[in-house]
Amino acid sequence: MRELQPWKRLSTRELLSLPPRLRILSDKIRLPDGRIVDDFYRVVMPDFACVFAQTPDGSILLERHYKHGVGRIDLSVPGGYLEPNEEPLQGAKRELEEETGYQADRWHLMGSYVVNGNQGCGKAHLFFATGARKVNDIHNDDLEETEVLLMKPKEVIQAAIKGEIATLTSMTAIALALNKEFVTS
Amino acid sequence: MRELQPWKRLSTRELLSLPPRLRILSDKIRLPDGRIVDDFYRVVMPDFACVFAQTPDGSILLERHYKHGVGRIDLSVPGGYLEPNEEPLQGAKRELEEETGYQADRWHLMGSYVVNGNQGCGKAHLFFATGARKVNDIHNDDLEETEVLLMKPKEVIQAAIKGEIATLTSMTAIALALNKEFVTS
Repeated sequence: MRELQPWKRLSTRELLSLPPRLRILSDKIRLPDGRIVDDFYRVVMPDFACVFAQTPDGSILLERHYKHGVGRIDLSVPGGYLEPNEEPLQGAKRELEEETGYQADRWHLMGSYVVNGNQGCGKAHLFFATGARKVNDIHNDDLEETEVLLMKPKEVIQAAIKGEIATLTSMTAIALALNKEFVTS
Repeated sequence: MRELQPWKRLSTRELLSLPPRLRILSDKIRLPDGRIVDDFYRVVMPDFACVFAQTPDGSILLERHYKHGVGRIDLSVPGGYLEPNEEPLQGAKRELEEETGYQADRWHLMGSYVVNGNQGCGKAHLFFATGARKVNDIHNDDLEETEVLLMKPKEVIQAAIKGEIATLTSMTAIALALNKEFVTS
């Protein structure tokens, strides 16, 4: 393998600050070959957790709701932004219970992924939870009106192929969870 | 299924404009239940295309490079932002050839996904290309120094499990392409 060098960040300016959701930064960078990049933008957003949750009979918990970033009604896995200083697993458990009323017995992290390799846009922590069972009412303070659905894996795959899963994070969680080669424990 | 209503966007303010890479907007929204949300932020970024490209012997083209949004060296599939008015397939073919020197015979769209269901952050168009062969030198004007690798599917899965695939888009393309149930043609 070739010897690759990281970039060096020389300074950072803040262009916009909208706490707690969004900060826009501009980094001045020195590349390994000595070139200077004056304005490399970063989009700083909170990390979030998403959950592919399966019940003992193999059904998967999905949410149907209008998503403003998509501009239409779609199907998503439960999830949301982490609270300040919240651990990803704790946030995943909280979001699953708030949004669906379910808790799960076993939790497996399928990876933590930077949303945009150039600009950042936060990190997605993707969980696979099994033994999910309803223990509570939904107590969701999200702005979206949400319908909670139980679907079989084949129905989820059909929905994906029809384009009903509109967001990258939900699609990643589903594609990883339904491929046994990626889920090792 | 319940009757779900879309949100109504009443007005939009521009908070930051850094063409062609980034605009930050604030939407004033009326929810279906009549509540008004004064500041729902949107992050407008260019759409991009990513390619899971496989050679006739089943090897997969990956790139090893420092990514500033990640802050370390990682493995990605080839891809990049679309140019203005560029079709996703055209952008995917261009990025593959610029970054690796490869062209491919058959192209299949594995879906187009909004990066963030709330704030937007652009759309990812994910392609599966087969019959990839080297036809050209690399002529990449990206800032990153990049090493192009050919890896077998099992090696890619091992790299994913070890956390070497650090970005959501690359992981989605790989997880979808390596799951035959999602790739229907």
